[in-house]
Amino acid sequence: MLRPRVMSKFLSNQPYKGTRDFFPPQMRQFQAVMRQLATIVERFGFEPYDGPLLESFELYAAKTGQEIVENQLYWLEDRSKRKLAIRPEMTPTLARMVSQQVMELPKPIRWYSIPNLWRYERPQRGRLREHWQLNCDILGGDPQFADQEILRLSHALIQSFGGERHLEIRVNHREWIDEVFQNRMKLTAEQSIQVIKLVDAKAKLDEKKYIEALGAIGLQTKTIDALEAFLEGGLDSLQSESNAPGAAHLSKVIHALNDQGLSSNIIYDPTIMRGMDYYTGLVFEIYDRSPENRRAMFGGGRYDHLLGLFGKNRLSGIGFGMGDVTIQDFLQTHSLLPDSTRNLDVYFTLLEGTYFPKLMEWATFFRALGLSCITALEPGKLAHQLKVAAKHQARHVVILGSSEWDTQTVSIKALKTGTQSEVKWANLKRWAEEQAQSKQN
Amino acid sequence: MLRPRVMSKFLSNQPYKGTRDFFPPQMRQFQAVMRQLATIVERFGFEPYDGPLLESFELYAAKTGQEIVENQLYWLEDRSKRKLAIRPEMTPTLARMVSQQVMELPKPIRWYSIPNLWRYERPQRGRLREHWQLNCDILGGDPQFADQEILRLSHALIQSFGGERHLEIRVNHREWIDEVFQNRMKLTAEQSIQVIKLVDAKAKLDEKKYIEALGAIGLQTKTIDALEAFLEGGLDSLQSESNAPGAAHLSKVIHALNDQGLSSNIIYDPTIMRGMDYYTGLVFEIYDRSPENRRAMFGGGRYDHLLGLFGKNRLSGIGFGMGDVTIQDFLQTHSLLPDSTRNLDVYFTLLEGTYFPKLMEWATFFRALGLSCITALEPGKLAHQLKVAAKHQARHVVILGSSEWDTQTVSIKALKTGTQSEVKWANLKRWAEEQAQSKQN
Repeated sequence: MLRPRVMSKFLSNQPYKGTRDFFPPQMRQFQAVMRQLATIVERFGFEPYDGPLLESFELYAAKTGQEIVENQLYWLEDRSKRKLAIRPEMTPTLARMVSQQVMELPKPIRWYSIPNLWRYERPQRGRLREHWQLNCDILGGDPQFADQEILRLSHALIQSFGGERHLEIRVNHREWIDEVFQNRMKLTAEQSIQVIKLVDAKAKLDEKKYIEALGAIGLQTKTIDALEAFLEGGLDSLQSESNAPGAAHLSKVIHALNDQGLSSNIIYDPTIMRGMDYYTGLVFEIYDRSPENRRAMFGGGRYDHLLGLFGKNRLSGIGFGMGDVTIQDFLQTHSLLPDSTRNLDVYFTLLEGTYFPKLMEWATFFRALGLSCITALEPGKLAHQLKVAAKHQARHVVILGSSEWDTQTVSIKALKTGTQSEVKWANLKRWAEEQAQSKQN
Repeated sequence: MLRPRVMSKFLSNQPYKGTRDFFPPQMRQFQAVMRQLATIVERFGFEPYDGPLLESFELYAAKTGQEIVENQLYWLEDRSKRKLAIRPEMTPTLARMVSQQVMELPKPIRWYSIPNLWRYERPQRGRLREHWQLNCDILGGDPQFADQEILRLSHALIQSFGGERHLEIRVNHREWIDEVFQNRMKLTAEQSIQVIKLVDAKAKLDEKKYIEALGAIGLQTKTIDALEAFLEGGLDSLQSESNAPGAAHLSKVIHALNDQGLSSNIIYDPTIMRGMDYYTGLVFEIYDRSPENRRAMFGGGRYDHLLGLFGKNRLSGIGFGMGDVTIQDFLQTHSLLPDSTRNLDVYFTLLEGTYFPKLMEWATFFRALGLSCITALEPGKLAHQLKVAAKHQARHVVILGSSEWDTQTVSIKALKTGTQSEVKWANLKRWAEEQAQSKQN
């Protein structure tokens, strides 16, 4: 029988490169941010969903985009030789699930999820191998209105933390890009996709390499000039194109949001491309406009053909994915992180082992009232236990020593003020009820 | 340039075998159960943590147990040839993380997590390849008290749903098993582990195969008789062993819990073994004692040597893992599932596209008050939109038609009662405030 051998050395206690251990303070912060995001999303009527972490490899091969599938997927074969991938993004799972119930579900469908996602990347600020991502999608509805709503939601999420003044929503439209690239610049569909990906990555390249890459795709100097003119065009140039596919829609959405008071946040930006192959309509990226942090926080776009992978049903959708790392970086940069301090109501000291059953009895009814409490689990000195209680940021410490035992009382110390009072055992329940009451208010 | 080919057929829209798609109703139910569990756990002062989904393969090879590592792990090599496993359980990650901060953390450490875990198993009722598991652990403290607390927590979790009368907490002790198996029955350590695993799997084997397997391990008839006598022993036989390692401790814990009023729930059961190699002290399993559902819902035990994998620090811990499938099955069997119906306050109809900005304006201030609302995103007939609102279980439908537009009013229909009232635009904010107020109470 094969048995693990006795270890000759210690195992590493560090997590896999590009991933994080969430110790309680980090976990509380993560949860506070995610809960606030989920609260806002639910106010927009979105419903939660989730799917499995492993999906068939083909699900991504079909539409996710070459770069991710070839270089960034974590994949494996199970013991029946099925080729599976750890999800690098949520949209294919969403499309797969919606296709199962597309006939029955009331439209538009508004769904959200906070999956963890994996990509093999070189870890750097804001980019890790494992992250969590708030995904919000609307499927169905008139794009004229659905596009507005998804942008309003993006704005509302940041606004809920008080960050809207740092926010820039940059929008573009894939049909408009296709019109310019394919009809006007006469690029092939293939070249067009290559240019989209190149422009998307432009910030990471120096000017010379960028121009060389355009040449390698087959663009002549004249075409490169036309491309640069397009990429530098402002809202005026968009508005002058009232008959061009995509451009008219984009103008309308921008105007509607301006009218709703978002004019300082929304901006037409022809350099916004979005890497995913499946986008077909409005695309957008949310930027932090502070000088120290000028980069995309999250983004998304409209996709028309994803459901078609699974059957004949068609339903256009628009959505975005907001990574937990970038949003937490943003909130930290601007001191907007929500409160996530430890929340412990009562710490019971244990000075004699024989007192333990009494503490358990009290803790049980305290908890039934909704108070959070811990008991020490080892008899020890009061001074040490007060230190432990302080580390846990307990609001109150209940002290039961031999003098309290004799008089059937406890001493209760409020850690913030240091004030201490005596409470009879017979009155302890009432004291706990008062605490529970004041906690609710 | 390699590009995905055009698909010649549709992709399957089904999830990978042994996994689940959580559509909104299932997701809401899952979340309602998990939130309630987390609420109770936090009242016991436990703090949340999480770790990465992928860990180094060696982390499990060291202690998790041969069956899981050899037959059930999902593992892969990353592009740098690091061998990684998708976590099949959380305890090794917990031990790895605690070992990083073992000196600084106040003791005892009480941590919980709800990770998703993967095992390659043949899918069957209660057993899936992907599941979520509430993990609660106490590290440090006197086992006399910590063991009581972890069992009280197990009890409190089920009690919070009203299920305590179905509950049986069966306890045993690894030192007591070792005493009987090794000192009295004279099994080697190797044989002892094999017998532990065999007894653990006994329910799945027929009597003849079980006896054969004991013979194959090397047990003589006389030893098998001694084993059976041990496995059939009741609390009396345990209590008569006041000097035997493990037995005395086990008796004390059972008595303490009896004294705390749990006598109908706690039971000494010498057949409880727990498969994991790393248990060294108290082991326990929580059973549903209803005839239709007689099987272990969850369990755990004490482990002394896990932190030793990572360095010289030692800290004994006790914990359990409760799977989301088994707890939901249990709650469903006994009609104890918490409420998880859709929670939507207001549905705004869209009868003319030109009314959309008005609806957005109202929805925005409704949401700021904490109300959840959706607007239709396509102009359409009122009857259809009322049906959609009903499918979403909206409490109120706000109707803005041409007659309402002309009189600057809206009609508000309460879907449950069918009553309809007119509200002036100027009074809509006050109406929303009243709704928000009544929602809080």
